[in-house]
Amino acid sequence: MKKITLAQGSGGSAMQQLIADLFMREFANPLLLEMEDQARIPLDQLTLQGDRLAFSTDSYVIDPLFFPGGDIGKLAVCGTANDIAVSGAIPRWLSCGFILEEGLELSLLERIVSSMARTASAEGISIVTGDTKVVPRGAADKIFINTSGLGAIPQHIDWGLRRIQQGDVILTTGTLGDHGATLLNLREDLGMEGALVSDCAVLTTLIQLLRYQPGVKALRDATRGGVNAVVHEFTAASGYGIELNENALPVKPSVRGICELLGLDALNFANEGKLIIVAARDAAEQLITVLQQHPLGRDAALIGEVVERPGVRLTGLYGIRRSLELPYNEPMPRIC
Amino acid sequence: MKKITLAQGSGGSAMQQLIADLFMREFANPLLLEMEDQARIPLDQLTLQGDRLAFSTDSYVIDPLFFPGGDIGKLAVCGTANDIAVSGAIPRWLSCGFILEEGLELSLLERIVSSMARTASAEGISIVTGDTKVVPRGAADKIFINTSGLGAIPQHIDWGLRRIQQGDVILTTGTLGDHGATLLNLREDLGMEGALVSDCAVLTTLIQLLRYQPGVKALRDATRGGVNAVVHEFTAASGYGIELNENALPVKPSVRGICELLGLDALNFANEGKLIIVAARDAAEQLITVLQQHPLGRDAALIGEVVERPGVRLTGLYGIRRSLELPYNEPMPRIC
Repeated sequence: MKKITLAQGSGGSAMQQLIADLFMREFANPLLLEMEDQARIPLDQLTLQGDRLAFSTDSYVIDPLFFPGGDIGKLAVCGTANDIAVSGAIPRWLSCGFILEEGLELSLLERIVSSMARTASAEGISIVTGDTKVVPRGAADKIFINTSGLGAIPQHIDWGLRRIQQGDVILTTGTLGDHGATLLNLREDLGMEGALVSDCAVLTTLIQLLRYQPGVKALRDATRGGVNAVVHEFTAASGYGIELNENALPVKPSVRGICELLGLDALNFANEGKLIIVAARDAAEQLITVLQQHPLGRDAALIGEVVERPGVRLTGLYGIRRSLELPYNEPMPRIC
Repeated sequence: MKKITLAQGSGGSAMQQLIADLFMREFANPLLLEMEDQARIPLDQLTLQGDRLAFSTDSYVIDPLFFPGGDIGKLAVCGTANDIAVSGAIPRWLSCGFILEEGLELSLLERIVSSMARTASAEGISIVTGDTKVVPRGAADKIFINTSGLGAIPQHIDWGLRRIQQGDVILTTGTLGDHGATLLNLREDLGMEGALVSDCAVLTTLIQLLRYQPGVKALRDATRGGVNAVVHEFTAASGYGIELNENALPVKPSVRGICELLGLDALNFANEGKLIIVAARDAAEQLITVLQQHPLGRDAALIGEVVERPGVRLTGLYGIRRSLELPYNEPMPRIC
């Protein structure tokens, strides 16, 4: 079984060969094949699409590398693409930095790279520049991936935290906690394999449906820290409070099962394919109708509202309202 | 002594606090402070400067973290900035992804972040978007940093591998192997501390001197794999050969000492502040004069030429010409 060696990160011929045989082959596109130290993207390709460049980065350190619904490669494309897409831009270009542990099975890297390439190409995303480092055995755990992404924000779109106002409502595009529960189940060996699947997906086409809809104020994808982290960002930035309605939260029975078993809250679980949207109240019904027409928005729902009183509160199943703090920690590390 | 905990990468309040107290404070700039999931850069700031966007990424896994002349933070800014600058663009915006090991001393992280901030700000570079992950003890070695960078390439600049022609000459902007020899000395405890300093530097202002000079064909910074790796890229892309002249190579006595001690070649050592330039022969003298006026180009020299016969060859001190292969491996891992 072929394994990754230190030579493959050395700048010598072993590295050149890995780049040519694997990365260039899988990610092949004209910008990458120019083999310059930097991708050179014609700026008119950006200015045709918008007036602001959206630029974001994420490192992926997830454990395990493969899980129901995805793998670290797919996640590394989806996660960064979504961080671009929530600005209203169409994610078009990604960079990709690998940190590999000496001894990593080559076949595993090949599966991951091919999953990245497949996910990117299905969404019209090109991986245009990259870097590979190999560290000695024990200096990293198998593989870490960083992706940075680019897209142009159309002139007419102005989604952002500063547009949040009292009276706005909070929407989700689907069931909450699927990614976190799937990983938790796998790592803690809770034995619910069949029912749990990560929601890992690129949300560009779903978000595009919102482009010409009035009343959209702010968008986030609810990853690490879950919905709870996102609504806390909304309150911190706006100075308003947010009240969520527990009855309205779409949570799959299997995810609810994991939560009850462990005494955890799906609101704190990571999602990798769900938006939290702040919208004008009078636009909400139309937005939900539009979202539900898309396979990734089928379970879209109104889950809360923006209120004057600061803080985040949750109205429970029996109508009792409690304060929802941002936990100091999350259920587990290396969730993404 | 305060240490990094898993909570600080969890998406919860401990992470928010680390971001606010350290990253936001040190990197403070308007785009970062918008606190969106992506930096939003007005495209007219790019189109004013050029017609192509230069986009590059690198992960930094260097060991040790601090070395004479720099540290992983400074390196993470210089390395990516230079990969942008060699296109002719002025590096302006960086993303930054940290992977931290649980237990890392907070004071160490603070020193690294403050070094990044200082290096970036001195060069007019803004760190506009970022990400922090913490992995459990043993899953990474202290700290890895990824930076991705952006800048605009001016319309009139067309530097690239495909412009290399037979008869062109090869220039270096200074002494070779300083970074690699400094790290090697430190890691192998060779006891030459005083004399060796990494050349780690942002090369933007040096490269700007070349903007309106005729005859510049292609630029690379000779990092991992050294000059040898760069000239092999030149030959692979152009189909021509390259002949280097050992007599002409500027190498500091202390670096030469390390090479002789270990039987290694400075041509294979990493540099972090040196350009290799392919230029038209009749422009070489003027280019060297211009480069030597800059503190980072004082030791600029003509070191070789592009010839018809493929391959890389080195004419030795006594006039004997030998073939210079790209080594399968380099002297050591984690050099950058």
